[in-house]
Amino acid sequence: MIVVLKSGTPAEEITRISEELAESWGVNVEKSIGEHKVILGMIGDTATLDQRQIQKLSPWIEQVLRVEKPFKRVSREFRYGDASEVLVSTPNGFVPFGEHHPVVIVAGPCSVENEEMIIETAKRVKAAGAKFLRGGAYKPRTSPYAFQGYGESALDLLAAAREVTGLGIITELMDTADLSAVANTADVIQIGARNMQNFALLKKVGAQDKPVLLKRGMCASIDEWLMAAEYILAAGNPNVILCERGVRTFDTKYARNTLDLSVIPVLRSLTHLPIMIDPSHGTGRSEYVGPMAMAAIAAGTDSLMIEVHPNPAKALSDGPQSLTPEQFDSMVEQMSVFGKAVGRWSERSLVTSA
Amino acid sequence: MIVVLKSGTPAEEITRISEELAESWGVNVEKSIGEHKVILGMIGDTATLDQRQIQKLSPWIEQVLRVEKPFKRVSREFRYGDASEVLVSTPNGFVPFGEHHPVVIVAGPCSVENEEMIIETAKRVKAAGAKFLRGGAYKPRTSPYAFQGYGESALDLLAAAREVTGLGIITELMDTADLSAVANTADVIQIGARNMQNFALLKKVGAQDKPVLLKRGMCASIDEWLMAAEYILAAGNPNVILCERGVRTFDTKYARNTLDLSVIPVLRSLTHLPIMIDPSHGTGRSEYVGPMAMAAIAAGTDSLMIEVHPNPAKALSDGPQSLTPEQFDSMVEQMSVFGKAVGRWSERSLVTSA
Amino acid sequence: MIVVLKSGTPAEEITRISEELAESWGVNVEKSIGEHKVILGMIGDTATLDQRQIQKLSPWIEQVLRVEKPFKRVSREFRYGDASEVLVSTPNGFVPFGEHHPVVIVAGPCSVENEEMIIETAKRVKAAGAKFLRGGAYKPRTSPYAFQGYGESALDLLAAAREVTGLGIITELMDTADLSAVANTADVIQIGARNMQNFALLKKVGAQDKPVLLKRGMCASIDEWLMAAEYILAAGNPNVILCERGVRTFDTKYARNTLDLSVIPVLRSLTHLPIMIDPSHGTGRSEYVGPMAMAAIAAGTDSLMIEVHPNPAKALSDGPQSLTPEQFDSMVEQMSVFGKAVGRWSERSLVTSA
Amino acid sequence: MIVVLKSGTPAEEITRISEELAESWGVNVEKSIGEHKVILGMIGDTATLDQRQIQKLSPWIEQVLRVEKPFKRVSREFRYGDASEVLVSTPNGFVPFGEHHPVVIVAGPCSVENEEMIIETAKRVKAAGAKFLRGGAYKPRTSPYAFQGYGESALDLLAAAREVTGLGIITELMDTADLSAVANTADVIQIGARNMQNFALLKKVGAQDKPVLLKRGMCASIDEWLMAAEYILAAGNPNVILCERGVRTFDTKYARNTLDLSVIPVLRSLTHLPIMIDPSHGTGRSEYVGPMAMAAIAAGTDSLMIEVHPNPAKALSDGPQSLTPEQFDSMVEQMSVFGKAVGRWSERSLVTSA
Repeated sequence: MIVVLKSGTPAEEITRISEELAESWGVNVEKSIGEHKVILGMIGDTATLDQRQIQKLSPWIEQVLRVEKPFKRVSREFRYGDASEVLVSTPNGFVPFGEHHPVVIVAGPCSVENEEMIIETAKRVKAAGAKFLRGGAYKPRTSPYAFQGYGESALDLLAAAREVTGLGIITELMDTADLSAVANTADVIQIGARNMQNFALLKKVGAQDKPVLLKRGMCASIDEWLMAAEYILAAGNPNVILCERGVRTFDTKYARNTLDLSVIPVLRSLTHLPIMIDPSHGTGRSEYVGPMAMAAIAAGTDSLMIEVHPNPAKALSDGPQSLTPEQFDSMVEQMSVFGKAVGRWSERSLVTSA
Repeated sequence: MIVVLKSGTPAEEITRISEELAESWGVNVEKSIGEHKVILGMIGDTATLDQRQIQKLSPWIEQVLRVEKPFKRVSREFRYGDASEVLVSTPNGFVPFGEHHPVVIVAGPCSVENEEMIIETAKRVKAAGAKFLRGGAYKPRTSPYAFQGYGESALDLLAAAREVTGLGIITELMDTADLSAVANTADVIQIGARNMQNFALLKKVGAQDKPVLLKRGMCASIDEWLMAAEYILAAGNPNVILCERGVRTFDTKYARNTLDLSVIPVLRSLTHLPIMIDPSHGTGRSEYVGPMAMAAIAAGTDSLMIEVHPNPAKALSDGPQSLTPEQFDSMVEQMSVFGKAVGRWSERSLVTSA
Repeated sequence: MIVVLKSGTPAEEITRISEELAESWGVNVEKSIGEHKVILGMIGDTATLDQRQIQKLSPWIEQVLRVEKPFKRVSREFRYGDASEVLVSTPNGFVPFGEHHPVVIVAGPCSVENEEMIIETAKRVKAAGAKFLRGGAYKPRTSPYAFQGYGESALDLLAAAREVTGLGIITELMDTADLSAVANTADVIQIGARNMQNFALLKKVGAQDKPVLLKRGMCASIDEWLMAAEYILAAGNPNVILCERGVRTFDTKYARNTLDLSVIPVLRSLTHLPIMIDPSHGTGRSEYVGPMAMAAIAAGTDSLMIEVHPNPAKALSDGPQSLTPEQFDSMVEQMSVFGKAVGRWSERSLVTSA
Repeated sequence: MIVVLKSGTPAEEITRISEELAESWGVNVEKSIGEHKVILGMIGDTATLDQRQIQKLSPWIEQVLRVEKPFKRVSREFRYGDASEVLVSTPNGFVPFGEHHPVVIVAGPCSVENEEMIIETAKRVKAAGAKFLRGGAYKPRTSPYAFQGYGESALDLLAAAREVTGLGIITELMDTADLSAVANTADVIQIGARNMQNFALLKKVGAQDKPVLLKRGMCASIDEWLMAAEYILAAGNPNVILCERGVRTFDTKYARNTLDLSVIPVLRSLTHLPIMIDPSHGTGRSEYVGPMAMAAIAAGTDSLMIEVHPNPAKALSDGPQSLTPEQFDSMVEQMSVFGKAVGRWSERSLVTSA
């Protein structure tokens, strides 16, 4: 249930209403400040609450509305229709993800392999326009005998790349035991597709401060995905970005997964959270990445995650879907055409101060 | 197996080689004229043919290559990498579908309901920029008790709309018994998703002259789809357009189907045939159609099929996924931005003479 | 809507009620005679009919009930909970398919290849206990270049096998043009998975007398499948057997399809029609056929379709999923254990006179 | 790679060969004792090893074979074709799971709700023939606001039920942090479908001694499932039971998941590990559980997991798929018919001493 306040409601009145709601009705109250309105979201056993009674609490209350969706905090209704933004601090400044901001590009290799490759890749993707470096330190691999990532030493190399380039770092967390190490280095913590419903992990990243990139599970419905995000918000962390990376269907011969771009308009109507598309995992082949990245921008994505490797043929993982830095350069060039067409491209630095 | 001829090969020599291939090796020979080369495709039992022996047939032969794919005539290799175009005759002139032509827009209602609505829709979609009117006379419906289309009388109404507007007509054929009636009115004959592997029907449309729009089956693999097209080409009709309309996956709550836009780069690499995307069936909801249409253009589609109805709320079928003419106008406006960005938009008439 | 008559309702009264329903309410009336009751099913625009008004028609009317499902004639409610049986005439006598009858075994090769093989197979499967011979004359093949079946000459060979063994014949119809030829030979006409929603074909087999075996489409939902059957019943033919043959899922590496045995209890509750399971297509590998056949019997199937070929390694189609006659013998032996356990096995002839 | 030793190889010779393999070839060696043979499995970088050289190590070596599958320790080849058994210690004695043992029945509620219900359920399912009690203390729930299980206090109640009835306990572990608490109470630790590829968790349960029940992920391929099991074996725990619980497909209207019974013959040929089927989650409706349980026994399952609740209508979770104790009684009665038919039913106690 949400309480929509009239514009101009005094701060003390907002506080008074919040406290009264919490005390008299036994619910948790979360304030969100939209462009024009202040919204108080109530979480808890709201099924029996009487909207008219709450309305009487204050003449500053414009409306009291029920959130009909099973997901509450992540639903667009919970913010009375406003988009949220996730503002990420990086050495180069704050980078905002969201519907009203330029498309943010995240790029880098599947795995961090050594210092030279990660630093070189970071420099190249920065030069091309990326704001974040991705790179796996802990890798979820189908086989226990496959390369599992270099772990903490890879985190150190990511930190070095961050220092050299000023790019933000996005890297995956697989085990709650590694949370503090990962959170030390990462500017955004990634939860991978296989862990989308690892609820223990979701609760842990929800109880800390770093923004979270939540990838969609391989056969997760939209509702399940949003409910997974709800776990993170319910635990206290409002900074979640949703990343589509392809779903599993009956045909995997050419594209390894089926990139479901319709999530862009679907999520836009259901949630206020920012959206990312990963066409590299979404297709599994470098030659399909470009067209799907263009499509994602045209459909309105807020950000893109692209795998780039200095030498894809020798990559320790995911080589076939990685672009070379040269291919990435020319792809960003093309992307700028579509980014400008949708009015969401920033030629110069996206850095803002906040 | 294909024989690539050197540029400048005299016409008589081409004929001589073709005849010799047919006679001495017992294969069917199909000539295709690309931008720079003439290609002779051989169909039949080519497994035992010796490439070097064929090479000796003429000094004008540049190369003899084996087509490794299970689909032959539809494969890109069969035309030595060239795209084909499907040139459709309409009252307003010839409209070409293909990789090197402007994006062709097809629009109209799910079903033809009455004269007024179909004429009005035709005028409106023409004014907005469509080159073809779609509209169902025979409707495949899950229930035998649902509206099945007005059949031949609907074909007459489509013919009237064609006369009034000069638009080409695309309508579905479900029963071989209706072929001549449909072919009389339609400029392009549509084979629906449910009939993609109705091989009797494929053979019949392959044995006549009108171009064919072949929709992908609801859970057809790319290979099965191309093999279905191969049935049509093998029966003698080279004019096939492939239309993606969404596949069936585990999540149908928001989007009714999952529109698989990755088919655009996948098909581009596998086949020379033109590609159409149908975001209306592909999503099942009018509010998702626009973003998916933009995405399709950005990803490189050759054409789009969009459902438009003067009054979607009262449509006899597929109302929820139909746009109003006004919504369609503004969607085409937006599409033009992306169409121009990819250099495939024709402000004025696309009409060409051929 | 159905009208349930009290037991003992006189024949003339049944006729009178039927006529009055048809005349006064403008609906089609179909009588079905269950074990204890006579049911009058009304088809047509029943949404506005008043149950109490119909009740007043006769004191012999016990109840008037609405069929809530989208499928009417095939729904279990339409027969007030009774199972139907499909009684097939064969040279060896009538064979009943249905919930209250022994499990019927159908066996034979994918395609009819030559006289010797089909006669030999027929003799062998008859000796093992099969009541029907299956064999394809017209084959739906993904590739236009693959063996398409021997057509009419294969029908003649099936007729010969029928004469020699007295087995009933089940063979597939793909093209409405072949209906009379197929109906001449077949005792049951098979509609294949790819044609499950070929509505033109469904209407045609609904308008003739031979029983129909309707295979489930590769990604057809239960509702779509039952609606396809409804097309046949709505066209006048009540004798439909539903055959599950595996659905398409994300994993096809070991079993080619995923045999969905849960359809057995699901269909049992939704429809009165008999159920067949095809573990050969359902798994695609001969070594998995036995366990799935046993499972089907234990779960309550009414019949089984098994591919048997005298020399699977040399089969023109579907060799890997075919059993040898020896393997089939021993499988039937095992099956008898489970058939007896469920009380649905007939040691001697299943032939009955009707 | 495996080394098959001749029967009668002296113990010291086995030790000598093992040590030599480990030292000279730098691989890990695992001994498994089959019915007739002793097998030494080598894990590590075996790609470059020369089979003939290893053969020369001892005249007692019968054969040196390469394991071609990506999964090694779980593959049937790794044990030279022998099935393994998982022997679980319970207060009532050791219960063996495996191909050569009676079908083991596991039953109980989705969640442990209170002492009375869990003790009552335990007594009832024991009386009916179950050897294990299942019950969730930690529940993976799609919504953060849904009942999450009573955690440690539920573990105490399970321990109480174990003491009263002597049944073994199977309960799910979701968080590595709860491992010691769960392992204290559980006789078998369950890894749920959502955590099948939670590799951190797999490594942890692999590094402790309690047997592990590994449920198949909702859209996990057979290979991915076996690789997940391989993680556990690779970490040192050979006692893994594989549990099929339904996969996600396009149709969820009637059965919530599609129970893939073909895994029984597929797994049997690929792995030596015991197989369990869970028809309760596999169908999601109590009325379908019986037929699928019968089918699973007929197809050869080694065990079954069935949800039983004293009052399904009031269950805190999964009520619709739970049987009442009375329904369970009569289901076990029916199951015994099929269990005897396959020669895998133990009328009296299955307790053995080991």
